[in-house]
Amino acid sequence: MWLRNCWYVIAWDHEIPAAGSPELFTRTVLGEPVLVIRRESGEFAALEDRCCHRLAPLSKGRREGDCVRCGYHGLKFDAQGLCVDAPGIPIIPEKARVRTYPIVNKNRWVFVWMGDPAKADPALLPDNFSCDHPDWKHKPGYLHYDTPYLLICDNLLDFSHLSYVHEKTLGGSTAIAQAKAETERVDGPGMPGVKVTRRVPNVPVPPYYRKMRSFTEGALLDRWFIYEFLLPGTLLMNSGGRPVGDPPDDLSNAVRLHSCQTLTPETETSTHYFFEQSHPSNQGDDSLTEGIFQSIVTAFEEDRDMITAQHRNILRDPAKAMVPLPIDGALVQFRRILSQKVAAESGQAASAS
Amino acid sequence: MWLRNCWYVIAWDHEIPAAGSPELFTRTVLGEPVLVIRRESGEFAALEDRCCHRLAPLSKGRREGDCVRCGYHGLKFDAQGLCVDAPGIPIIPEKARVRTYPIVNKNRWVFVWMGDPAKADPALLPDNFSCDHPDWKHKPGYLHYDTPYLLICDNLLDFSHLSYVHEKTLGGSTAIAQAKAETERVDGPGMPGVKVTRRVPNVPVPPYYRKMRSFTEGALLDRWFIYEFLLPGTLLMNSGGRPVGDPPDDLSNAVRLHSCQTLTPETETSTHYFFEQSHPSNQGDDSLTEGIFQSIVTAFEEDRDMITAQHRNILRDPAKAMVPLPIDGALVQFRRILSQKVAAESGQAASAS
Amino acid sequence: MWLRNCWYVIAWDHEIPAAGSPELFTRTVLGEPVLVIRRESGEFAALEDRCCHRLAPLSKGRREGDCVRCGYHGLKFDAQGLCVDAPGIPIIPEKARVRTYPIVNKNRWVFVWMGDPAKADPALLPDNFSCDHPDWKHKPGYLHYDTPYLLICDNLLDFSHLSYVHEKTLGGSTAIAQAKAETERVDGPGMPGVKVTRRVPNVPVPPYYRKMRSFTEGALLDRWFIYEFLLPGTLLMNSGGRPVGDPPDDLSNAVRLHSCQTLTPETETSTHYFFEQSHPSNQGDDSLTEGIFQSIVTAFEEDRDMITAQHRNILRDPAKAMVPLPIDGALVQFRRILSQKVAAESGQAASAS
Repeated sequence: MWLRNCWYVIAWDHEIPAAGSPELFTRTVLGEPVLVIRRESGEFAALEDRCCHRLAPLSKGRREGDCVRCGYHGLKFDAQGLCVDAPGIPIIPEKARVRTYPIVNKNRWVFVWMGDPAKADPALLPDNFSCDHPDWKHKPGYLHYDTPYLLICDNLLDFSHLSYVHEKTLGGSTAIAQAKAETERVDGPGMPGVKVTRRVPNVPVPPYYRKMRSFTEGALLDRWFIYEFLLPGTLLMNSGGRPVGDPPDDLSNAVRLHSCQTLTPETETSTHYFFEQSHPSNQGDDSLTEGIFQSIVTAFEEDRDMITAQHRNILRDPAKAMVPLPIDGALVQFRRILSQKVAAESGQAASAS
Repeated sequence: MWLRNCWYVIAWDHEIPAAGSPELFTRTVLGEPVLVIRRESGEFAALEDRCCHRLAPLSKGRREGDCVRCGYHGLKFDAQGLCVDAPGIPIIPEKARVRTYPIVNKNRWVFVWMGDPAKADPALLPDNFSCDHPDWKHKPGYLHYDTPYLLICDNLLDFSHLSYVHEKTLGGSTAIAQAKAETERVDGPGMPGVKVTRRVPNVPVPPYYRKMRSFTEGALLDRWFIYEFLLPGTLLMNSGGRPVGDPPDDLSNAVRLHSCQTLTPETETSTHYFFEQSHPSNQGDDSLTEGIFQSIVTAFEEDRDMITAQHRNILRDPAKAMVPLPIDGALVQFRRILSQKVAAESGQAASAS
Repeated sequence: MWLRNCWYVIAWDHEIPAAGSPELFTRTVLGEPVLVIRRESGEFAALEDRCCHRLAPLSKGRREGDCVRCGYHGLKFDAQGLCVDAPGIPIIPEKARVRTYPIVNKNRWVFVWMGDPAKADPALLPDNFSCDHPDWKHKPGYLHYDTPYLLICDNLLDFSHLSYVHEKTLGGSTAIAQAKAETERVDGPGMPGVKVTRRVPNVPVPPYYRKMRSFTEGALLDRWFIYEFLLPGTLLMNSGGRPVGDPPDDLSNAVRLHSCQTLTPETETSTHYFFEQSHPSNQGDDSLTEGIFQSIVTAFEEDRDMITAQHRNILRDPAKAMVPLPIDGALVQFRRILSQKVAAESGQAASAS
């Protein structure tokens, strides 16, 4: 149940070694091993990390300029995936090539397109502006999950879990779970998805926020979480909290955050999670940036712990039904949109063949 | 091949945290995760350890009085499994409940009934009296096996293995294997099973017995092992040894023991093993109790080592036949009784549906 | 895809404990656990390491003369696999026996025959003379692989990998990959297979050779690798290098080596690898022998690393096709011969039943 014709983040750009480095970067996306190289021009290339000859990983070979030479029998591939040298073989067969993937760097997220290359459209990239914007500051994060990616989408689509999973970290109040979330469908111009708006009035300051601004003991805030969650699994969120009583349009004492998070299936049962939570760059210093990073890593590890336990329980009895509740609105809608897109893609593939 | 309509031990009662404790106890029985709580009344409750909403383990949540609140989205369940609070959801759907299991504490063994609750009958509990009796003393034991439970039943149904697996611990003589075991069927009023009587005359004192009484070097005993092995997998044994020459009804110099042991399938390939071996409480002190405990733990680890190796061999070629021998009488009979009960249960289930 | 009617090496003879030792040697071949004992006569016996009664490994029991007694219930088997004692059982059933395998020690390799014993023919043993020959010296080696054995056969059938996998160890030059390998079929009188001849003129001295003889800096050699690779997976190789300019029949300044290597499937996905690389015993001392051993172990670990990575890639998508290249000649031919023999064997088995 994977959408193929869409962009998936494969790495933060700083993860990809420089053109002159002997190191090769590989990561598995939708079950396929993908080698990413930074070309001498500065652009990226993505190749299937599997030599066409005997399927050895090219990442165990070596860079030669913009090419990669397989470390098993020495076949050399250029950035277009063509075999341009094969020791001991005067005439290289035309079939000797590896697949390449459209790849693009947008705001430090490196995206690959795992479906039909002809359909790769930069207009479908999400607006992850805070990943690289002078007004916003963060430390980039990555976590690996040993669970299917949809369980993590579910988690991000229902913030009522903040009150319980993150009771002592992000949450700080059962009011988040009590607050009603408004869900609406998002349609284009990029990928479709859902928009979730959750306003939580008159609640204590979460421990997390105190790393950003000082509040008096017992201070109360009006908090908000407004985010889009777009196919295949990208969250773009504006959140924050304003002291109760401040005029609605006065954010001078407010905490404001912007977060970009995205999920990339590694295999059917494992997932890459790239994330950042930015604060305004004119507020606070590096220790604040680090503090926010540590807070969200701690919280995301709480999520991972819970979702991993949930996944183990599901595996005990995969036929076991879940009881749907009104709070599942956003995740049910998101799963439906995804299913429809996946089905449409299969249909296209079927009618094309 | 599990019987469902019967009692399985899920824990020693001391394993279950007090009502005021923040800890939650969970253990898997027949593949189902079961949460056991000690209610404020002192009685136990057993709930499916899987929130009905998204299947997260309730044991990752928290106690609230006699209720448990899920740590994912905050649903709260009472001891009857009903959802009594769901944050953000004014009207809780009727389906929002988790399964509960009949549970009873008898002589410190906590039993759950995994089948039809209407059939749960305390009269079917085994007579594990020595687990909690002023005349008998022991230290309770638990081992976890990574093998199917029937292989351990087999082991307990043929004590000829004592001469080999436990040559240096419990056995001490090949005479145990040489002695003939009488097997008879046990039918009610509790669970059916087999009764095995093995008398071993004129044999050396096993090292194990010397921890209980002093014997002269070279002393010889008439030993006996008389036990019932009842469905689903419970051994109740009276064993001992009397100096050769003592009148049959004179046990004044005899070693006498009573043992209760029971096997609970965790999954198809793993098993819980609860056991105790008691000595008369008016004989010996705490160091004797500890010595017996250590001896049987050592011996049961020898069994586990052998059965685990046997299981690995079976997995290499599951179709490989075993050659039945006359010493297999009890285990063959037990497996037959179990199969018939399991088949009858399936038949009932089929005709009921 | 295993040939059964052939000899597989199960051990170096020094691995098998002496007749008087309490240790028992077991190793799995073609998925079957095999117990090898050194009899008091000095000959070997190979028994299925699985008691016929309850399938416990006999290797967890004990030696009694040339017999083995099971450590579970005490059945005793002689070197012909017959049960000769069963405690508590006056008349031993005829079926109480374990399988035995033809076994033979040739030049310190201990071979077992996993197929029809009636077909076991010593004439089919390979000529592994350098494993035990006064003119040759080596230290015996063993490595365990967690990959199917055919992937390792592939590796040994195409030495172009020396230039890449072993660039810094055995290879030392891309000329090995550039040189053309001549392949011819080998037919009897022993097992069939392929003969590969690869001559590499005018190349630098590989680092490896410098452990055997001193060469001037920048010296050039004419190297050769001539080997047979015979079913089921045995390499017998004559290799070496002669200073460029020396007359072809003058080996006085040449490095000469003989190597015997053989692969034995343990399971579908794991393999035993026995190997030696011998130098003339009148050249060099023990430190040379040790140096060669260390060099090839290092190199074979490089192979294992690459083949394991290749195997992981294959498992991601078992349907993924490989692109055949001219350099695959020997391996394609070898796989074809093996397939034909396996098919013939299945056909015989089918028509016999």
